[in-house]
Amino acid sequence: MSVLERTIKKIYPQDSEARDKAKDRLDNLALPHWALGDLMDLAIDIAGMTRSLKPDVARKAIITMAADHGVVKENISKFPSEVTPQMVYNFVNGGAGINALARQAGARIFVVDMGVAADLNNLADAGKIINKKVGLGTDNIAEGPAMSKAMARRAVESGIDIAENLSDEIDLFGTGDMGIGNTTPSTAIAAICTGRSVEELTGRGTGLDDEQLAHKIEVINRILEVNKVDTEDGLDILAKVGGFEIGGIAGVILGAAANRKPVLIDGFISTAGALIACKIEPFIRDYLVFSHRSVEPGHKAMQEFLGCRKPLLDLSFRLGEGTGAAVAMNLVEGAVAILTEVATFEEAAVAGADK
Amino acid sequence: MSVLERTIKKIYPQDSEARDKAKDRLDNLALPHWALGDLMDLAIDIAGMTRSLKPDVARKAIITMAADHGVVKENISKFPSEVTPQMVYNFVNGGAGINALARQAGARIFVVDMGVAADLNNLADAGKIINKKVGLGTDNIAEGPAMSKAMARRAVESGIDIAENLSDEIDLFGTGDMGIGNTTPSTAIAAICTGRSVEELTGRGTGLDDEQLAHKIEVINRILEVNKVDTEDGLDILAKVGGFEIGGIAGVILGAAANRKPVLIDGFISTAGALIACKIEPFIRDYLVFSHRSVEPGHKAMQEFLGCRKPLLDLSFRLGEGTGAAVAMNLVEGAVAILTEVATFEEAAVAGADK
Repeated sequence: MSVLERTIKKIYPQDSEARDKAKDRLDNLALPHWALGDLMDLAIDIAGMTRSLKPDVARKAIITMAADHGVVKENISKFPSEVTPQMVYNFVNGGAGINALARQAGARIFVVDMGVAADLNNLADAGKIINKKVGLGTDNIAEGPAMSKAMARRAVESGIDIAENLSDEIDLFGTGDMGIGNTTPSTAIAAICTGRSVEELTGRGTGLDDEQLAHKIEVINRILEVNKVDTEDGLDILAKVGGFEIGGIAGVILGAAANRKPVLIDGFISTAGALIACKIEPFIRDYLVFSHRSVEPGHKAMQEFLGCRKPLLDLSFRLGEGTGAAVAMNLVEGAVAILTEVATFEEAAVAGADK
Repeated sequence: MSVLERTIKKIYPQDSEARDKAKDRLDNLALPHWALGDLMDLAIDIAGMTRSLKPDVARKAIITMAADHGVVKENISKFPSEVTPQMVYNFVNGGAGINALARQAGARIFVVDMGVAADLNNLADAGKIINKKVGLGTDNIAEGPAMSKAMARRAVESGIDIAENLSDEIDLFGTGDMGIGNTTPSTAIAAICTGRSVEELTGRGTGLDDEQLAHKIEVINRILEVNKVDTEDGLDILAKVGGFEIGGIAGVILGAAANRKPVLIDGFISTAGALIACKIEPFIRDYLVFSHRSVEPGHKAMQEFLGCRKPLLDLSFRLGEGTGAAVAMNLVEGAVAILTEVATFEEAAVAGADK
């Protein structure tokens, strides 16, 4: 049995007994009923995921997956592909948005080369990044598939491998991405999975103007025409219109779920990764925590498809890297603190509400 | 000159030079322009408040102000007044929502007896709470004023005193409240300041049903009829329809602003305190950070009156105590981290966007 199949077999829904017990405790906290709203709902989820009323979430990690995209040739991004490796160096040097926000949240960062179109062996050899390179960037999906099915599997299994290896030392995972051009494959994945139109889903990425946006929509429609996708096969979607980092993110999600670890989904690209993971194994839905709503218009539709009513944050982020996941880690810790540290009416000797 | 007048004289608008310099740096960070959205706007504000491009926000405190309300006699709350002192004990024992969330945020908590209708001298003598008691709860505002004008001034000056005394050791303030019945005076203050109808502004507080809600609306309309308020005089509004903790919160805000310290406004009651502070000195608007949007329907109108387009969080909180402010402190730290720790395109040697 392959790594992927073995992992899928280990993914179960949330534990309903732990959920019920958590709800019972939260129902009796010395505060007006459910007055800490969404964080109490989240606390139940974390209990259900971890099968624990004292969930550990202190050891946190953002997995930032980097890769390049052949479709950049179609002029769908304002930034050149060279920025992908440059940003990997920036991550390693601690100067990126994710560095600042992960530091604030007390999270470690693991930067993964899933398929950057540059030689990053020096960083991998120095132990500064994890080398899982599947290729030197994907092929141009406006002309054909992004990668072979074998490469798609390898990308996902690389992500699983990372989550598995970290599962002894990390309680709470966050996903992140870096890859110039990657809103284009992510939008294609969103269109395939949600059934919504490309026009509705496509956004300005790193800052396109109206004309560039119209061009991007045209390119994504072409991508969907050129690539005949089996819409029920996650690996096929990934191989045809995806990206190496998107596959890696899907793998991290599958690996986290298989280890009953909550995984904070960052923005648009990470949610595309979650769509792939969900097509592979729908039970992963039970392990997702949606950190924020991106400015990208398709994000809401993708989140709804995955069962998210309302993400934790709405801060007009559109960076990726794991920045939304890092900020939201504070809220997951807050949710767990509510479950584990707040006294009940009885414990605190506080009078209850009139019936 | 009184403490209040002296404080008012020290409150200036945000520093526009610091704002401009912060914006200039943020414009050049190695990320798509303004891709960390609301936290970048917040970073500019913090720079403007503190007059610094390296603002200190590490030393954080929640000031939780407690007091009782004579209007509870009118049956506007599901909980009895005894819960106010019981919750003060819960704060001191570390078992309340604010304890859990302040701990998560790394914030200290200062619990202040502004006017609890119980003898809390043992806690004050033990240094576990700050004693600023103005009275044993307010008078019933459905029958007449809450307190004398002198008491209103004393409540506000007590809050100023606390902020002044802490300003050497605290960088970032958060407000909080505990007082059974206090959504009723807060709604009255909201109606007076925003000009909106009581029907529109009144919510279920700690959990009223439809009939109880209709009764609460009737009581608040009576409060506004009985008390002829000078709508431009903050101390008069506080004296007629306010509460001791609401005055204390207004004072903390004035004191924080006078020391150029950002102050995170918690929920509905804290925002009523901000309305009083704003009536006393409108420049305090420049020092407010709106932490979240409460479930109470009047909260949005109050925030808009104070110039807040969108608070940082929207988590269906309706607890008070400072819980929303505590969670949002993480976001203020994140905003400052973006300003101070993220490299510019030039510093990181990353290629910029096509023009």
